Amino acid sequence: MFDNLYGTGQSTMDAIIRTTNVLIAGKVVVVAGYGYCGKGVALRARGLGAKVVVTEVEPVAALQAHMDGFLVMKMEDVSPRGDIFITVTGDRDVLTKKHFAKMKDGAIVCNSGHFNVEINLKDLKQLSVSYKQKIKNITEYTLRGNKKIYLLAEGRLVNLAAAEGHPSSVMDMSFANQALASAWLAKNYKKLEAKVYEVPAEIDQKVAKLKLASLHVTIDTLTPVQKKYLASWSEGT
Amino acid sequence: MFDNLYGTGQSTMDAIIRTTNVLIAGKVVVVAGYGYCGKGVALRARGLGAKVVVTEVEPVAALQAHMDGFLVMKMEDVSPRGDIFITVTGDRDVLTKKHFAKMKDGAIVCNSGHFNVEINLKDLKQLSVSYKQKIKNITEYTLRGNKKIYLLAEGRLVNLAAAEGHPSSVMDMSFANQALASAWLAKNYKKLEAKVYEVPAEIDQKVAKLKLASLHVTIDTLTPVQKKYLASWSEGT
Amino acid sequence: MFDNLYGTGQSTMDAIIRTTNVLIAGKVVVVAGYGYCGKGVALRARGLGAKVVVTEVEPVAALQAHMDGFLVMKMEDVSPRGDIFITVTGDRDVLTKKHFAKMKDGAIVCNSGHFNVEINLKDLKQLSVSYKQKIKNITEYTLRGNKKIYLLAEGRLVNLAAAEGHPSSVMDMSFANQALASAWLAKNYKKLEAKVYEVPAEIDQKVAKLKLASLHVTIDTLTPVQKKYLASWSEGT
Amino acid sequence: MFDNLYGTGQSTMDAIIRTTNVLIAGKVVVVAGYGYCGKGVALRARGLGAKVVVTEVEPVAALQAHMDGFLVMKMEDVSPRGDIFITVTGDRDVLTKKHFAKMKDGAIVCNSGHFNVEINLKDLKQLSVSYKQKIKNITEYTLRGNKKIYLLAEGRLVNLAAAEGHPSSVMDMSFANQALASAWLAKNYKKLEAKVYEVPAEIDQKVAKLKLASLHVTIDTLTPVQKKYLASWSEGT
Repeated sequence: MFDNLYGTGQSTMDAIIRTTNVLIAGKVVVVAGYGYCGKGVALRARGLGAKVVVTEVEPVAALQAHMDGFLVMKMEDVSPRGDIFITVTGDRDVLTKKHFAKMKDGAIVCNSGHFNVEINLKDLKQLSVSYKQKIKNITEYTLRGNKKIYLLAEGRLVNLAAAEGHPSSVMDMSFANQALASAWLAKNYKKLEAKVYEVPAEIDQKVAKLKLASLHVTIDTLTPVQKKYLASWSEGT
Repeated sequence: MFDNLYGTGQSTMDAIIRTTNVLIAGKVVVVAGYGYCGKGVALRARGLGAKVVVTEVEPVAALQAHMDGFLVMKMEDVSPRGDIFITVTGDRDVLTKKHFAKMKDGAIVCNSGHFNVEINLKDLKQLSVSYKQKIKNITEYTLRGNKKIYLLAEGRLVNLAAAEGHPSSVMDMSFANQALASAWLAKNYKKLEAKVYEVPAEIDQKVAKLKLASLHVTIDTLTPVQKKYLASWSEGT
Repeated sequence: MFDNLYGTGQSTMDAIIRTTNVLIAGKVVVVAGYGYCGKGVALRARGLGAKVVVTEVEPVAALQAHMDGFLVMKMEDVSPRGDIFITVTGDRDVLTKKHFAKMKDGAIVCNSGHFNVEINLKDLKQLSVSYKQKIKNITEYTLRGNKKIYLLAEGRLVNLAAAEGHPSSVMDMSFANQALASAWLAKNYKKLEAKVYEVPAEIDQKVAKLKLASLHVTIDTLTPVQKKYLASWSEGT
Repeated sequence: MFDNLYGTGQSTMDAIIRTTNVLIAGKVVVVAGYGYCGKGVALRARGLGAKVVVTEVEPVAALQAHMDGFLVMKMEDVSPRGDIFITVTGDRDVLTKKHFAKMKDGAIVCNSGHFNVEINLKDLKQLSVSYKQKIKNITEYTLRGNKKIYLLAEGRLVNLAAAEGHPSSVMDMSFANQALASAWLAKNYKKLEAKVYEVPAEIDQKVAKLKLASLHVTIDTLTPVQKKYLASWSEGT
């Protein structure tokens, strides 16, 4: 969660700025998908002064985006209004012919989701009369009527292709988590069945505790009376 | 989740403002607990211009507060610096003698958690040379050296006692959820075992869908190809 | 500036919440005017989770609102989309017949500008088949087709009528400023011509210094070398 | 104002991220100076999830930072707590021996003000047992006890040295402004005295109008009645 929410958010916006040198303040940034990655990207885009519009297919996530103060719209409806489109859904065909056709001249599109299928490149090419690499990591597509759409990093993960991926201070947590989970596995594998296990909560807590210590952040601890109250309360209601 | 995160946040800050008419901008607001309620309160306090400090006992929640840009400290350490203290932990004795003793003159303390045990009133009274109801919902405690601490709503839920609780536009979702969950129960109870069930995801989605419709928010839907891709991808990795 | 920016922002949103108990998160809040008051209201509305749209007549202010991440639109265009309309322009006829006619059912309108002329009540009445005081400070106007528009505080300053105006912690600065300005006047009036003077910068600084001291905020002071550098630099370029 | 507030804010944070690949979320970022540049940097650092502390010498600016929700402290007091220090004061010696001595291991220091005198490099070198260029634009200073301080871009303007300066979408406004101001000068120079003139408000408005048009943002215009009201009101009070 931490690397998706905090890492992807920063590194995606960083990648877009590095590649295009565009001022984010004032721009309409369309974020497709409001999972952890999408939330992180939406939050950072807003933090840089953008007007953020979220598209979603899942009603609970859509409602959460709405309540978090983002405009929630259908991709088709927001296509003519977006300055920058960022796909983070994990699905394919998030941006297709009908969206490209409606975008305005100069729109920037990129992907920070799983693979380069979120933006349908075949569609984009079909709509275009020509395309060329403009500068590193920017391909300029010229559509009929001389409208330009700028594709970053060929639709691959923009934060890996055009920036340096997650900052090391997030990834250390992910790696620590994986290391401790492996250790736990090695110790407990005989008791485990053949199914998917969640990382035990104790490991998440241990990693968080180590990270906080490294940050010199000290937190409170429960007294025995507080522990007892919590336990009784959990039982009592 | 929605009523805790969005409802409690607004109604707690609303209650404090109504009761005290204090300007939140610039104040150090200490939020004890970073669950959904605590997050909501921290977010709204920041949104009103406060410097928010979070206290926690759970390392993962503490780390999240830290990454969300809040100062995370021990209650003992932040006690001399807070202007307004809000407890939302669900546990007892969050504010006790040692905290009151360190607070500055004029500190405001209130509770938006579960019961009036979060703030240890016995301790507060013991430290005080006198106390009196100042105006409605404000009790002024005078400690040795003429230091004043202002307790709101006698330590009971400040957003219920001093404001109007959750706005109706949040609670309708909670009630709809409970109603639909009851209907589901009535239909399925024969199949259920004697244990705690989560509300089925379909019900959450149904409520969210109805709410979005009432808000005139339209969202995207998956195409068959997208659904297939998602399914295969879920299986494939 | 301080009371307009920080005071009006909080007290206006406070007044709306008190009067209507509406959840701000997710709402489209339209702020007419982006002076100090408008900025304060826009900032706080966003801080409470709203999607804020700003209307302006002055291009520099409009551009600033745009760069601050707010949608900037014509009032006519945003009329069908707003949930809550707040006028803070200092001019008349900000909301008129053509706007009311386009508003959606349940829209809330209020004024936090100078007088009750910002919302054209004559127009609202002409469009309505009936109106009645719903609860304190809410008048329900019923338009043709049974559309309801809710007017707060009869269009007078909502933060004075329905809340308690500026929090005392802002107003003390304004009053201190006025007091010191009066003292300055008393001392210097013989030297003054018959024209409008700005409050001398020294008075603003003195008030700010006293306020910071009362807040226990300590700030840096320039060394002689720094002062000299600043002075030479001011001259040199 | 626009390029300082919006341009410097983004480009400074961009430069720090590019150079160090550090995650901003959770970091204590110390911004020295709360003029337009400082505000922009503070706002963007917060938008990226930092805890921002502001230092100032001017009380009114300090109070504004405080009311904007930033911690305001003396540089000496915040020196042991900052992760990243950014000077934007326009003065010299903002960071000196006494500050470096208190900083924690791994602190990052950089300048986004006017010249490379804000960070006293002579002091930093005197405190250090060695220093070396670590990677491009990062010099690692090793102080006694093996404490490291990382200086970006040798103390020169980090947003020019390590990023690409202001995004073009801000600078176009500055240049347009300068061009129109030059045209105005050429036309009016005979009437001008030998003193500093402000750019006429009409030019700012013209640039803003052109910029809004290029952004497809339409704004309201005053009716004759509104203009008259404003004028009479300006006179009347």
